[in-house]
Amino acid sequence: MKVALIGLGSVGRGAAEMIAKKDLGLTITGIADSKSGLINNAGIDIVSVLATKKKTGSCGTPGVTAADVVAKAEYDALIEVTPTNALSGEPATGYIRAALNRKKHVVTSNKGPVALYYKELKELARKNGVEFRYEATVAGAIPIMHVLEHGLAGNEILAIYGVLNGTCNFILTRMAHEGLTYEQALLEARELGYAEADPTYDVQGIDAAIKLVILANTIWGNGVKLDAVDRTGIDLLTADALQLADEQGCTIRLIAEAIPRKNLLRVSPRILEKNHPLVTQGTLNALTLETDMAKEITLIGRGAGSVETASAIIGDLLFIRDCHVQRP
Amino acid sequence: MKVALIGLGSVGRGAAEMIAKKDLGLTITGIADSKSGLINNAGIDIVSVLATKKKTGSCGTPGVTAADVVAKAEYDALIEVTPTNALSGEPATGYIRAALNRKKHVVTSNKGPVALYYKELKELARKNGVEFRYEATVAGAIPIMHVLEHGLAGNEILAIYGVLNGTCNFILTRMAHEGLTYEQALLEARELGYAEADPTYDVQGIDAAIKLVILANTIWGNGVKLDAVDRTGIDLLTADALQLADEQGCTIRLIAEAIPRKNLLRVSPRILEKNHPLVTQGTLNALTLETDMAKEITLIGRGAGSVETASAIIGDLLFIRDCHVQRP
Repeated sequence: MKVALIGLGSVGRGAAEMIAKKDLGLTITGIADSKSGLINNAGIDIVSVLATKKKTGSCGTPGVTAADVVAKAEYDALIEVTPTNALSGEPATGYIRAALNRKKHVVTSNKGPVALYYKELKELARKNGVEFRYEATVAGAIPIMHVLEHGLAGNEILAIYGVLNGTCNFILTRMAHEGLTYEQALLEARELGYAEADPTYDVQGIDAAIKLVILANTIWGNGVKLDAVDRTGIDLLTADALQLADEQGCTIRLIAEAIPRKNLLRVSPRILEKNHPLVTQGTLNALTLETDMAKEITLIGRGAGSVETASAIIGDLLFIRDCHVQRP
Repeated sequence: MKVALIGLGSVGRGAAEMIAKKDLGLTITGIADSKSGLINNAGIDIVSVLATKKKTGSCGTPGVTAADVVAKAEYDALIEVTPTNALSGEPATGYIRAALNRKKHVVTSNKGPVALYYKELKELARKNGVEFRYEATVAGAIPIMHVLEHGLAGNEILAIYGVLNGTCNFILTRMAHEGLTYEQALLEARELGYAEADPTYDVQGIDAAIKLVILANTIWGNGVKLDAVDRTGIDLLTADALQLADEQGCTIRLIAEAIPRKNLLRVSPRILEKNHPLVTQGTLNALTLETDMAKEITLIGRGAGSVETASAIIGDLLFIRDCHVQRP
């Protein structure tokens, strides 16, 4: 199966390296970063392209753009892994629309387009008889979308609870275990590369809320948007609050919840017993699904990382390969 | 999609009820218990058959056998949910072979055929261009097979660790929390219906070992059999052992492990820290997969139950419906 790869940051590089390393029957025919692009319908030597990118900062020819690759390369599936813009969803949404309109499957790790235009993009994919997949957008390596789509197919999903932001979970873990203040824990998270210079997006729960919107749309197809999420971050939590919880055998986690029967979409710090399955340590993510048949199912795993995210992208690609391109 | 259902014990009844209740596009055209059967290619009124079964003990006409239903009904997928016979795999294996040879998909909750004849049955399905699915055989409602097949597709599975027997987990939980002896906890498990009159199969780790064999075959296709599993049960564990573990912040769980690089297939009581993800409470099951890309993924959920097992069976049926019978 032929794939085109748009975006060569940490996620794109991880995916490219895994495609090059593993014998998955995937050939990259187009590749682009923000400055250049490359098309070779016979197959790109991805190892040499990654080496060039490392040396020069560019993956291909300066005249060739990502839009060119999307529009002109021969491929079955587009891998869209440019950085998330949660406000406009661009330029990712444009690439995704163009590929779907060419009747190409799309796999993305980009939360912007999915959170903003879920219904439109799913419908566009359906109309064109292709898949629009986005496993990598929520909870990193945890295959939550596959579980919802297939593993728990036929179940009514009554509620979903999740630890969806590794940065917040790291900060809360460190505050609880070491008695650090929020500021001290944030500093540590920054030093370890878990938090951005401007941590607003993570610590105010925006990232978790965007993921919750993606989950809610996936499960209930209800077209909810970010502003429907009742949101409280962790940035005002004190060391005292965690100490108090600890004294009662509990701790605090930033929990994203969606419970349609209560019309509830919320991201907020919650007090949980220490042995609650959602109390994961460090940057781990976790999700609990409440369903009518399977009852509660909990999944725990890494929420980020170059290779971990590649796992989600490759899972989506192989599903497309097996269920569409090389039909059983 | 048309389905035939063989077996009307707790699992079969749960599946039948869910198929009748939910609008899944599934029509039951054949049904059989150990005493009788019924074929109606236009669709069986399952609610009335279940009522008859409850009143008379039989679901259909005494002259019609399960083998007749498998051989003669019109269906796309066979649901084989007769009781497990771990020694012979019969009569289930015979039904499964017959259905596959008729080019019918098969979904089973029956551990016998899968543990004994994995390679043969998978190959027979492949040759006939149909699916042989068995999500319900391991860890009840946890969609471990879907996760292995799709969610983590492309990953190398380096190791698997599981709490695969709810009865043992219940006994160990009660021994740890209440300081009960093994005998006291077993008695309680019996009273609650979690343990059989003869608990050997569970407490000596045979059930967990059979599930481990199914997992190992699924992941590595290595054709291992039950006698390859190094097995120790929980029946010789003392309350003192659990007390001692507790004093060190630990507890004991019956863990099934498969680690190919160490050539290890083992079921045995292991000491785990209390906050280890595999330390689940009561009858819950749990699995941790160690993989090259996604790293560790843990799944926790119910390991048994009529409706919980129906969840796994219906997940398999809907996968067949979506990827084969009504192809995208």
